[in-house]
Amino acid sequence: MIYLDNAATVKPDEWCFKAAEKYLLSQFYNPSALYAEGYNLHLELKQARENILGLIADTRNFSLIFTSCGTEADNQAVFCGARRGNVVTTLGEHAAVFSAVNELKRRGQEVRIANLNADGSVDEEHFLSLVDKNTSLVSVIHVNNETGAVNDIAGLAQKVKAKNGFALFHSDGVQAFGKIPFRLTHQIDLYTINAHKIGGIKGCGALIKRKNLVLSPYIYGGGQEQEMRSGTENVYAVKCFEHCALQRYKELEKTYDKIREINRIFTAKLDKQLFGLISTDKCSPYIVCVSAEGVRGETILHEADDSGLIIGTGSACSSNAKKRFSRVILACGVNETVADGILRISFSHATTAEEALRAAEILNTIVKNRKEKMA
Amino acid sequence: MIYLDNAATVKPDEWCFKAAEKYLLSQFYNPSALYAEGYNLHLELKQARENILGLIADTRNFSLIFTSCGTEADNQAVFCGARRGNVVTTLGEHAAVFSAVNELKRRGQEVRIANLNADGSVDEEHFLSLVDKNTSLVSVIHVNNETGAVNDIAGLAQKVKAKNGFALFHSDGVQAFGKIPFRLTHQIDLYTINAHKIGGIKGCGALIKRKNLVLSPYIYGGGQEQEMRSGTENVYAVKCFEHCALQRYKELEKTYDKIREINRIFTAKLDKQLFGLISTDKCSPYIVCVSAEGVRGETILHEADDSGLIIGTGSACSSNAKKRFSRVILACGVNETVADGILRISFSHATTAEEALRAAEILNTIVKNRKEKMA
Repeated sequence: MIYLDNAATVKPDEWCFKAAEKYLLSQFYNPSALYAEGYNLHLELKQARENILGLIADTRNFSLIFTSCGTEADNQAVFCGARRGNVVTTLGEHAAVFSAVNELKRRGQEVRIANLNADGSVDEEHFLSLVDKNTSLVSVIHVNNETGAVNDIAGLAQKVKAKNGFALFHSDGVQAFGKIPFRLTHQIDLYTINAHKIGGIKGCGALIKRKNLVLSPYIYGGGQEQEMRSGTENVYAVKCFEHCALQRYKELEKTYDKIREINRIFTAKLDKQLFGLISTDKCSPYIVCVSAEGVRGETILHEADDSGLIIGTGSACSSNAKKRFSRVILACGVNETVADGILRISFSHATTAEEALRAAEILNTIVKNRKEKMA
Repeated sequence: MIYLDNAATVKPDEWCFKAAEKYLLSQFYNPSALYAEGYNLHLELKQARENILGLIADTRNFSLIFTSCGTEADNQAVFCGARRGNVVTTLGEHAAVFSAVNELKRRGQEVRIANLNADGSVDEEHFLSLVDKNTSLVSVIHVNNETGAVNDIAGLAQKVKAKNGFALFHSDGVQAFGKIPFRLTHQIDLYTINAHKIGGIKGCGALIKRKNLVLSPYIYGGGQEQEMRSGTENVYAVKCFEHCALQRYKELEKTYDKIREINRIFTAKLDKQLFGLISTDKCSPYIVCVSAEGVRGETILHEADDSGLIIGTGSACSSNAKKRFSRVILACGVNETVADGILRISFSHATTAEEALRAAEILNTIVKNRKEKMA
């Protein structure tokens, strides 16, 4: 099988699990316990926290709260970051932010939602026009999970702070962390990252927080994670995440260049008579969003699966919602026929050029045959 | 090392991890994805859900929401279960409930807290006197995590419903599930369970819910877990939990009897001139709470660690809070000298009589020597 649904989840790095295995089976203690075996794990967690954080931020100015996933981190940012006044976000957010702000709205909070450009990036002018003195929180996805569109969050954060220095700036960086070169700037208050989108284990994410920002916990209890996230610490998952993240960053630029080339090979091979590209070359090279206008994406997905190719349609995370069309794709300004034919092909550090080439061939064949049958 | 801090976390069952390993390394797909490989995992999750739920409840009347831990499940029960009116709970709750209701109180909710009996069980009369027509939620821990006191939650739920049929009844069953024989009765609306307290992996718990009860999600996003808990499903952790829970229940009564005997051996060997028992024979046999009145628990814990014995002092989960005395232990009516000498010895299915006997000898020696030095 060729697996190209890496934006949904990445095939785990077996060596990370092996490297962290002792935390599963022998160093299994509760890190909050007072005895040496527990305290040693507490120190290991601290080290992992610093190591992961240091990959994208100055550890003097930021701290990191381990959470159970990216969704939880996004929820903490939204529910604990929003205060009085309005919340500004975009139509391009992952459901973890979008559903959370919808819930805020249901509770009576004013929520303002910015439009997107054709590639799924936020319409900056519209976005900034929504920010005012009463904005308490803004949330802008870093790399869109459906189109790969990259938002200039450092630039946006600066512009938001210029309009309102009290507004908190959050970004969901799940599709950016470990993939595209980036470091947090001091105007970014909150940033979400995740392990399983870069080859780590599921059940481990983190919310990065500007150090002097006071934020409430979202999960209350025993006071773990410096009172910011209670629940027995998942040392094994954290150590898998640490191993994996360090490895991704060791090769970040080299892999980025490789994926850019793979992306180029894939899109060049794709038959432009059959597929329209939503993603542009400004998008993250890890994600390619295309539409086989006139053929249902889901049909192609199943035929591709039968042909040995696994790809996605929009966001796997919201496929439960059984919504026919993707909110994000419609916000790119396409019609329903285009939205119906959407496919997401997403690469990982482990993807090869041969796989990408073969994938394009498989997709070309499927859609060509379908269209011939329909004609 | 003799490990007797099993109420904090249990040494994981290696065979569970081996049995579930394929979900870590090869069946790593996103269960919400539309292709067959993802959908198959969705079915596996469904099966695990039914299998775990069936161990303590009628699956026709209850459903199960996988969460990232017991703490998160408790938070969902408290924050989503509490509506208008008052919330009634006890001084014996785990921090996951107690801190959550404290947060409700901070937000303006009326919270009523029932006193405890000498063994840490709730004072039923006081508890029931707090429940009235305006009670929207009650939460009573099933087995107290510090003393092992067992609350008759089936009886209490019935009495609560007789006073107010609209009040939701939640119980944290983390120290009961997989340990003491019990099945959910129809007056119990919500029940928290957890994997790592019975030999499963950390990062996996569940909230069991009466099927026709409408509850809000606590983590919003892609709509996983039937819209009740968003975030990419952690199939590996769930399958580990399933294997482990099925095994525990296969041997539940046999193990319960074994632990009762081990508990008897341990407490018989413990020098009653040196240690006062807080736990009684009505408590769960898995937990023994004692006080070496006049010697600090933490000192004994460290000396025991040096002698090859790992035990706890109160709840590991709240040791971060750096509170000198346990709220639960003080609520048992002991003075501060007793509270200062508290130790928690807790067994698992894997504990042997020899370990328990040796543990009692080590503790006797440590406290005897300490007291002789002090005399």
